[in-house]
Amino acid sequence: MRLLTRVVPALALAMIAALPLWAEEPQQFSLDNGMDVIVIEDHRVPVVTHMVWYRVGAADEPPGQSGIAHYLEHLMFKATDTMEAGEFSAVVEANGGRDNAFTSWDYTAYHQRVAADRLDLMMEMEADRMVNLRLDRSDWEPERSVILEERGQSLESRPEGVFNEQMRAALFQNHPYGIPIIGWRHEMEQLDDTIAEDFYRKHYAPNNAVLVVAGDVDADEVRDLAERHYGAIPANPDLDERVRPLEPTQQAERRLILRDGRVGQPYVNRMYLAPNRRPGDQREAAAYQVLAALLGGSAQTSVLERRLTYDEGVALSAWAGYSGTALDHGVFVLGIAPAQDVGMQEAEDALDDAFAEFLETGVDMDQLERVRMQLRAAEIYERDDVAARARTIGADLATGLTLADSEAWIEVLQDITPDEILAAARDLDRRASVTGWLMGEDD
Amino acid sequence: MRLLTRVVPALALAMIAALPLWAEEPQQFSLDNGMDVIVIEDHRVPVVTHMVWYRVGAADEPPGQSGIAHYLEHLMFKATDTMEAGEFSAVVEANGGRDNAFTSWDYTAYHQRVAADRLDLMMEMEADRMVNLRLDRSDWEPERSVILEERGQSLESRPEGVFNEQMRAALFQNHPYGIPIIGWRHEMEQLDDTIAEDFYRKHYAPNNAVLVVAGDVDADEVRDLAERHYGAIPANPDLDERVRPLEPTQQAERRLILRDGRVGQPYVNRMYLAPNRRPGDQREAAAYQVLAALLGGSAQTSVLERRLTYDEGVALSAWAGYSGTALDHGVFVLGIAPAQDVGMQEAEDALDDAFAEFLETGVDMDQLERVRMQLRAAEIYERDDVAARARTIGADLATGLTLADSEAWIEVLQDITPDEILAAARDLDRRASVTGWLMGEDD
Repeated sequence: MRLLTRVVPALALAMIAALPLWAEEPQQFSLDNGMDVIVIEDHRVPVVTHMVWYRVGAADEPPGQSGIAHYLEHLMFKATDTMEAGEFSAVVEANGGRDNAFTSWDYTAYHQRVAADRLDLMMEMEADRMVNLRLDRSDWEPERSVILEERGQSLESRPEGVFNEQMRAALFQNHPYGIPIIGWRHEMEQLDDTIAEDFYRKHYAPNNAVLVVAGDVDADEVRDLAERHYGAIPANPDLDERVRPLEPTQQAERRLILRDGRVGQPYVNRMYLAPNRRPGDQREAAAYQVLAALLGGSAQTSVLERRLTYDEGVALSAWAGYSGTALDHGVFVLGIAPAQDVGMQEAEDALDDAFAEFLETGVDMDQLERVRMQLRAAEIYERDDVAARARTIGADLATGLTLADSEAWIEVLQDITPDEILAAARDLDRRASVTGWLMGEDD
Repeated sequence: MRLLTRVVPALALAMIAALPLWAEEPQQFSLDNGMDVIVIEDHRVPVVTHMVWYRVGAADEPPGQSGIAHYLEHLMFKATDTMEAGEFSAVVEANGGRDNAFTSWDYTAYHQRVAADRLDLMMEMEADRMVNLRLDRSDWEPERSVILEERGQSLESRPEGVFNEQMRAALFQNHPYGIPIIGWRHEMEQLDDTIAEDFYRKHYAPNNAVLVVAGDVDADEVRDLAERHYGAIPANPDLDERVRPLEPTQQAERRLILRDGRVGQPYVNRMYLAPNRRPGDQREAAAYQVLAALLGGSAQTSVLERRLTYDEGVALSAWAGYSGTALDHGVFVLGIAPAQDVGMQEAEDALDDAFAEFLETGVDMDQLERVRMQLRAAEIYERDDVAARARTIGADLATGLTLADSEAWIEVLQDITPDEILAAARDLDRRASVTGWLMGEDD
C-alpha cells in the first residue's frame, strides 16, 4: 500500500489537460519484403531506441511445446554464423548501449537503446540474427537449464506465480492464453534445437516483424538503413495466417484454492474473460479500461478501496484491472486482500456487494472526470518517454491493431460514457470467470 | 436407481469363477504396409464383425479445429471415387448387415456386422474409403449442419452434457482431453472440406490403423483378404509420432457450479486426474479400476452407497468411476446426488467424509472378493460376446496397449492388493481435481 505515490494532485491534472498530446506524429511505411516500419522522431537527446517486434508469442506455440517462444528469445543472444554467443549484447554494451528482449502471448520483441549514430550497427546485428541464428549444442543445452531455472525462480518459488498460472489455466478452456508464457516445466524439459529451429524458421521473417525506431533520427535515414539491412532479407512466402483456437461460450463459473505455507497475505482474485481491443473497434475495450480505473484506480477514485478499505475496513486493499491489448481475448480482474480477522468468504462477499452496489448506483461523474484526467495524464507521461511510446506502438501493432488505433486509444478512452461503462460492468459474466483464493496452510 | 439388476447372485459368481477365460486366443499379425490385424475366431454363429480402428481421435486435432475427427467420421459415409454418398451403409443393409462408427479422444472406428461370407465385400468397401473419399460440397456442407444439430441435441440441450463438458474443460489444463469430442460449436462452424481433407490425408492410412475381425472366420482367410484389400494401399511415410501436450503438475483444486432451470436432480461430481493404463504397466490403473468398483460398484459392494444412501440417507445415489483406457491420462470420478432437503454442501461433505473413512478403515476383504468376482464376471460376459471383445481389443490397441496388455488386464485386476487400492485412493490429489455442482435455478 503506497497510496501517496498514486495521488495525482488536482493542479497537475489541470495543467495536463492543457498540454498538447504529442509533438511529432509517428511515421509508418513498409519495406518491399513486407516488414512494417514505424519511426518516432524525437530530437531532445541524441539517443535512439531500436526495436524489432515479431508477431509471434507463446500463444502461437505448437501444442506440447510450451515455452518455445521464450526459449528462442533466449537463444537469439547466442551465436549466429558471424557472431559468437553473447557477442550481440557485448557489442551493444561496448557502444554504451543497453539491450534486452521480452516475450508475451502475442509477441516477442528485441530492443536496444544506444547513441543515435549507432543505429546502423544495431540494424546490422538485428538483421543478422533474424536469419543466421546457429543453434550449437553448447549454447542451447545450458540455456534450457537457464529457462528452467527462470521458471523456478520467477514462478514456482512464488505462490503468487503458481496461483496466477493456475488461475489462467482455469480461465481459458480452449485458447492457449491459458498456457504460461514461460512454458509448463515438463514441456520445457523436452525443448531442443530442432524445435527451436522449426519455430525460428516458421515465424522469424521480415514479413512477420514490426521495426520501431524512436529518438534522434530522421525518418528518411531510417528508411535507407532499414532497406539496406532488413530489406535484403527475403519474405517468408509460407507464413501462416495467425489463427488460434478461440474460447467457446463459457457456461460454468470456476473456483480454485491454492494453499501454500509461504503465503504471507491471503487474497481473493477473480478473472473474467473480456473483450479485447479490436482494430477499428476499441470502444468496448475502452469501457473496460475506464471501468477498471474507476473501480480500482487511485485512492481518490477507487470505488472498491473507498468502500472496502476505508468505509468498511474489511480489506487491506482491493483492486480491479483490465488487459485488452491482445490478439484474441481480454481479461478483467477484481480482487481483495482481507483485513486481519476477515475471512476469505467474507472478503469475497464484500467485494461482490461493492460491485453490485456500483451496478446499482452507477457512475459518479466527479470520479469519472478524475479517471479521465488520470488516463490522459498516464498517456501523456508515456508519450513524453519516447522509449515507452515505442513500446506501446510496437505492442499494439504486434497484436493486430493499426497505428491509427494506437494513436486513437487515448481519445476513445476520454469519450467513453457512463452508460458504456455500466454496460461493460454488467456484461462481466460469472459463468466466464474463475475465482481463486490464495491462502497459507493455516488460513 | 435400478439396484436389483446390478446384483450378481453369489451362486452365479461361484460358477463364473470356475469358467475358463476364453476359448480361442486372438491371433495377431501385420501387413507389409504396417497395418495391424487381430483375428478372433468364434464359430458359434455364421456372423463376422469387421472393424477398422484409426489411431486418431479428437485429442489429435489441430488447435482450433475441434470436432474434425468426428466430422470426418460422418463424412466417411459420403461419396468415394466409386461409391455414392450413403451407398456404403445401403450395401451393408442390403446384405443383411448393420454398420456404424464412433469417435473418441484417442480413436475413430468403423464397424460392420454381417454374414461371414460378406467379409470380402466389407473389406473392399472399407479399403476404398480409407483412401478414395471425395468431399463434394453437396455432401460436406449439409453434414456440417448435421453435426451441429447433433451437438445441440446430444449436448447443449442437456444440462448434464454441458456440465460434463465444462468439468473436463476445467480438469485439463493443457491436454486436449479437455476439449469436447464433438467440438466447440464456434470451431465446428468453421470446419470445411479442406480441413477434413487435410485431416484425412494425414491420419487415415494402413500404418495408422488396426483391423479387427471377429467371428466365424479363419485367420488365414482373413490374412488373404486383408492383404488383397488393405495390403494394396501404400503406407503413409510421413505419419507423425503421436505426441500430445501432457498435463503439468496441477496445483490448485478447481470448483464450478452450473445452474440450469431444466435440472431435475442436482448432483455433485468430482473428477480427478488419474494414471492411465500403460503398455506393460497396468497395475496402477488396475488399482483405480478396483477402487472404483469397491467405492461405487453394485449394491453389495458400494462403500459409498451403503453409507450415504442406506445408513445416512443423505444421498439418492452415490458413485465412483474410472476411465483409464486412454493414451495419456485417466480420470477418476466421485459423485453424489443429494436426497430431498439435503443441501449440495452437506452432500459433498458427506461424500468427503465417506471417502476419508474408507481411507482410514481400509479395504473390507469380503467386499474385495465380491468386486473381484464381479470384474471377472464382467470380463467373461464380454468375452462371450465376440463383438464386444473385438471392441475392447480394438480400443486397447488404438490407445497404445499391446494385445498382451489387453489379454492380461483381467488377471491384473484380480491380482491387485488392498495396499495397492489404498495407495491409489491416497494418491488422488484434490489439487488435480475439479468439483462441480449441477443445480436448478432455485436449488
